[in-house]
Amino acid sequence: MSADLRGRSLLSLDDLADEGIDRLLATAAARRAPASDAPLRGVSVALVFLNPSLRTRLAGEVAMADLGGHAAVLSPGSDAWKWETRPGAVMDGDAVEHLRDAVGTISGMVRGLGIRAFAGMRSWKEDAEEATLRAVVAASSCPVFNLESAQDHPLQSLADLLALREALGPDLRGKGFALAWAPHPKPLPMAVPHAALRAASRAGMRITISCPEGCDPDAAFLAKVRKDAEARGGGIEISHDRLGGLAGAEAVYCKSWGAPALYGRWEEERPLRAKHRDWTVDAARMAAAAPGARFMHCLPMRRNVEATDDVVDGPRSLVAAQARNRLLVQKAVFLETLRP
Amino acid sequence: MSADLRGRSLLSLDDLADEGIDRLLATAAARRAPASDAPLRGVSVALVFLNPSLRTRLAGEVAMADLGGHAAVLSPGSDAWKWETRPGAVMDGDAVEHLRDAVGTISGMVRGLGIRAFAGMRSWKEDAEEATLRAVVAASSCPVFNLESAQDHPLQSLADLLALREALGPDLRGKGFALAWAPHPKPLPMAVPHAALRAASRAGMRITISCPEGCDPDAAFLAKVRKDAEARGGGIEISHDRLGGLAGAEAVYCKSWGAPALYGRWEEERPLRAKHRDWTVDAARMAAAAPGARFMHCLPMRRNVEATDDVVDGPRSLVAAQARNRLLVQKAVFLETLRP
Amino acid sequence: MSADLRGRSLLSLDDLADEGIDRLLATAAARRAPASDAPLRGVSVALVFLNPSLRTRLAGEVAMADLGGHAAVLSPGSDAWKWETRPGAVMDGDAVEHLRDAVGTISGMVRGLGIRAFAGMRSWKEDAEEATLRAVVAASSCPVFNLESAQDHPLQSLADLLALREALGPDLRGKGFALAWAPHPKPLPMAVPHAALRAASRAGMRITISCPEGCDPDAAFLAKVRKDAEARGGGIEISHDRLGGLAGAEAVYCKSWGAPALYGRWEEERPLRAKHRDWTVDAARMAAAAPGARFMHCLPMRRNVEATDDVVDGPRSLVAAQARNRLLVQKAVFLETLRP
Repeated sequence: MSADLRGRSLLSLDDLADEGIDRLLATAAARRAPASDAPLRGVSVALVFLNPSLRTRLAGEVAMADLGGHAAVLSPGSDAWKWETRPGAVMDGDAVEHLRDAVGTISGMVRGLGIRAFAGMRSWKEDAEEATLRAVVAASSCPVFNLESAQDHPLQSLADLLALREALGPDLRGKGFALAWAPHPKPLPMAVPHAALRAASRAGMRITISCPEGCDPDAAFLAKVRKDAEARGGGIEISHDRLGGLAGAEAVYCKSWGAPALYGRWEEERPLRAKHRDWTVDAARMAAAAPGARFMHCLPMRRNVEATDDVVDGPRSLVAAQARNRLLVQKAVFLETLRP
Repeated sequence: MSADLRGRSLLSLDDLADEGIDRLLATAAARRAPASDAPLRGVSVALVFLNPSLRTRLAGEVAMADLGGHAAVLSPGSDAWKWETRPGAVMDGDAVEHLRDAVGTISGMVRGLGIRAFAGMRSWKEDAEEATLRAVVAASSCPVFNLESAQDHPLQSLADLLALREALGPDLRGKGFALAWAPHPKPLPMAVPHAALRAASRAGMRITISCPEGCDPDAAFLAKVRKDAEARGGGIEISHDRLGGLAGAEAVYCKSWGAPALYGRWEEERPLRAKHRDWTVDAARMAAAAPGARFMHCLPMRRNVEATDDVVDGPRSLVAAQARNRLLVQKAVFLETLRP
Repeated sequence: MSADLRGRSLLSLDDLADEGIDRLLATAAARRAPASDAPLRGVSVALVFLNPSLRTRLAGEVAMADLGGHAAVLSPGSDAWKWETRPGAVMDGDAVEHLRDAVGTISGMVRGLGIRAFAGMRSWKEDAEEATLRAVVAASSCPVFNLESAQDHPLQSLADLLALREALGPDLRGKGFALAWAPHPKPLPMAVPHAALRAASRAGMRITISCPEGCDPDAAFLAKVRKDAEARGGGIEISHDRLGGLAGAEAVYCKSWGAPALYGRWEEERPLRAKHRDWTVDAARMAAAAPGARFMHCLPMRRNVEATDDVVDGPRSLVAAQARNRLLVQKAVFLETLRP
C-alpha cells in the first residue's frame, strides 16, 4: 500500500495506506480551480451506473472535463443493454449481455472504469461479498473506481474526511464523531454508514454509533474499524440512547440504514424502523452533541424525516462542503491514478 | 439592466436591456463557426432536464464544446434522482431528493446551471409564478439559464429574433408579426407563445394574435407586452378571424396553446380545440398574410395538424434558421455570461 | 468510389471502394493511442440511438474525445422526443416530432450525424429498403454514419475485417470463413449477418454459411455478396450441416438470426428456432473447423446459448479484439470523413 496510486484501482478506503489518503486529500484541496495544465488530456474514462446518480455522475464528468479528459456515462438497462451477472449463466432470459463481456469491452476502450452497483438487499452475505464489484474488477483490463457498491463508498469517505479536516482541523485523532441513525421510509443499504465509519476510524476519531436497539452494525465489520480506530488513537462504541449517544461529538453524521439483524427480511424490519420515527436529527438531538458540533449528511436526504430543515440549512451544517468535496476528491482520484 | 452579462442569470427576455439583446444577437451572429480560441476552456455547466429535449440539449452540449468547455446533461427522474420541489416538505413519499439539495450540489460543481421545467398545467397562477424556476434560482450558487419554463423560453425568443432580423432586416419596428394559433391533439403550455410575444414586442413589431374566441392570452401578460411594443413603435391586437387576423403580417408564427380561460380544466377545453381543427396553417391561411410572408415555428411540430408540409418545407419557411440559431444563441449566452 | 472520404457519409461497406476500406483499416491501426494532435478540435458530431447501445455509443464518444472533438449522444423516446418516420403523416397521435425536423435540426448543429435504427422486424421488404436510414440521409445536411441499421452494420464490418487481418494475415483471399448460425431466445435481424458477409466477401474469402434448413439468407443479397467474393478470388456456399458446414474454416463467425423465409411471422418461426437448440457453438462444433480456427462474435451475446463460455473465453477467441477494434474503426471513420 504505497502512496503512489498510478495505474491502481480504488475500491475502498481499505485499499489505501494512510499516506495514500493524505496524498489524495492534499491533491483534492489543491485542485479547487479547473486545471490550466490539462494533465489528463487524451484520457477517457467510462462511468457505469447500474443505479441512478446525481453527485457522482456530475462530479465524474466535471472532474474529467476540468482535467482536460473525458468521462463517458453509461446506464445499462436504460440507454445500454441490461447485464447478466451470474457466472456460467445460460442466458435464455431477459438479459442480453453478460457483465463479463460488457466490462471487457468497456475497459478495452478507456483508461479507467467507474462502477456504481448498489446492494441487492436480499442477503447480507451476498452484499458483504461485493459480488458485482468483484466481478467488474475481474473482467476489467483497466483500473476500476468504486462509485458506491453494496457496502462501500470510498469517494464519499474521502469527501467526508476532507470536510472534517476543513471544519475541525487537520488532526482528527481523538475527536468525537457520532454516526447518528435516522428514520427513513425505506430500509437503506450499509454503503454510506460503512464508508463513514471507515473514514472516521482511519482518522483515529473517537466514534459513537447512536442507533436504536436492533440496528447495530455487523460485528465483523465493527471489529475491523475498531482496530483501525484504536491503532490511531481513537475508538468505537455503540449507544442505544437517541440523545446521550451524541455526547461529546464534534461531528454528527446523520444516516439511515436498515436493521442488519433483519437484513433481507424487510417486512419484519418495518415495525422496528416505524417505532423510531422520533430519531430524526433535529435541534434537540443536535443539542445533545458537543457545543458547536457540525452536522453531516451525504445526500440525497429525506428532509424533515432524517433531519429537519433548520439543522440541514443551519450554520453548523457541512452538507454543502461534503457535496462540493465530491468533485475535488474525484479530480484527485482521477489525477493520481491516471496521470501519465 | 446593463449590457454586461458576465456572471448573470438568463431567465427571461424581460431581464435584458435592449442593449443586452443586441449584444447577444451580435455575438450569436459572429459565432457561426466553432471558436478557434476556446474562450471557455476549463468551464463546465450542467444542463438539467426535468422534461425531454432535443434542440436545447444538443445546442447546449455543442455550444460548450465549440467554446472549449463542457456541458454535463442531467435528467432527474430517469438517470438521476426525482426531485421534491415543495419547501418544508416532510419527504416520506417517493421523491428521494429535494430540489434545494440537488441544485445546491450541482451549482457547487459548475459555473452555470441550465434548467428545463415545463408547466404543471394544473393551475394558471402556479405556472405564471414560475415556482420551479424561482426555486432553482433561490437554491443555486451560480448563474441559472432558463431552458424553457412554465411560461417562458428566452433562448427561443433570441433565436427567433435573430431569424426575424436575418429575414426582414435589422430594424423590425412597425413590421407586421402574426402569432397564429394552430390546432394540436393536446393542450400546450404558454411558454413559446409568451416567448414569441416577448420577442416581437421588444423588437417593436406590429403584432396580431390570430386565435379562436376563448383562446385569448392572459390579460395581464398582454398589458405588459403591449407596453413593450408601444414603447418601441409597435402595438398588439387580437383577432378571432382565422384568415383576416394575418392581414399585413410579414412573419406568421405558428403555435398551438391550450385555452387560457379554461386552464387546468382540460376536459372542458377539449371541445373548443376540437372545433377549430381548420386553423391549421396551410397555403390558404398563409395567402392571407402579406405577400412573401415568412413562416415560423419553434419545433417540435405536429406536421399536417399545426401546419401543412408544403408550408413548413416551402421557400418562405424560417424553421431551419430558427433551429440553427438555437445553437448560435446558446453560444452567445454561455460566452457573454461565463467568460472570464 | 474514391479513397478520399472527406465530407462523405458511411452507410455500408458497399459505399466504399477497396482502397477506401484499406485506407480506413490503415488509419484505424495507426490510431491505437489517443491523438496528441487533436485533429478534430472544434468538431462536434451527434450520435442518435433509436435503439440501445453499449459498444457503439462508447466507441463514438471516446473516439471523438481522443481526436479532440465532441460526440453528443441523443436517445429519442427516452431523453428526447419520439420521432414520426412516415412522410406526409398527419401527426395527431403520440409522436411529437417528425424525423425530418429532428434530423434537419441536428444536422444543422453538428458536422456529422450517426444514427442507429434497428429493423422493424415486420416486413422483409420494409427492412431491406432501409427506410429509416434513407429518411435520415434525405433529411440531413451533413454526413451520416450508419451505427447499425435494419440490415447493415458497416462499423462492425470494418472492425471484423481488422480483427481478421490481425489474426490471419493481411491477405485474406481464399481463406475459409464460416458464418455459423446459432440459437437465440428471440428472432434477431440480419444487420450483423449481412455485415459479416459483406466483410468476408470484400476480403475475397471462401465463405460457408452453416445454418439450419429454412434459415438461408435472402437470395438477392447472396447473389450480391457472391459476386463480390468471386471477383476477389473467394466464393460462397450454404451448408445445412451443423458440423460439416464448418470444415476448412479458419474463422468461425457465430451469429443468430430469425429465419428469413418466415420474416415477420415470428410465431410460425419459433418452432424452427426451437428445434435447433443444439447449434450452439461449443468445443465440438469448433473442432469441425480448421485446426486453430478463430472464434468471432460481435457482442452482445447470449452466453451458453449462442456459444459456450469455454469457446468465448478460450485462446482462439477474437471477441475482445473485435470489440476493441470498434473504437479504432470509429476513430478512423470520424477522422477520414470529418478532417478539415
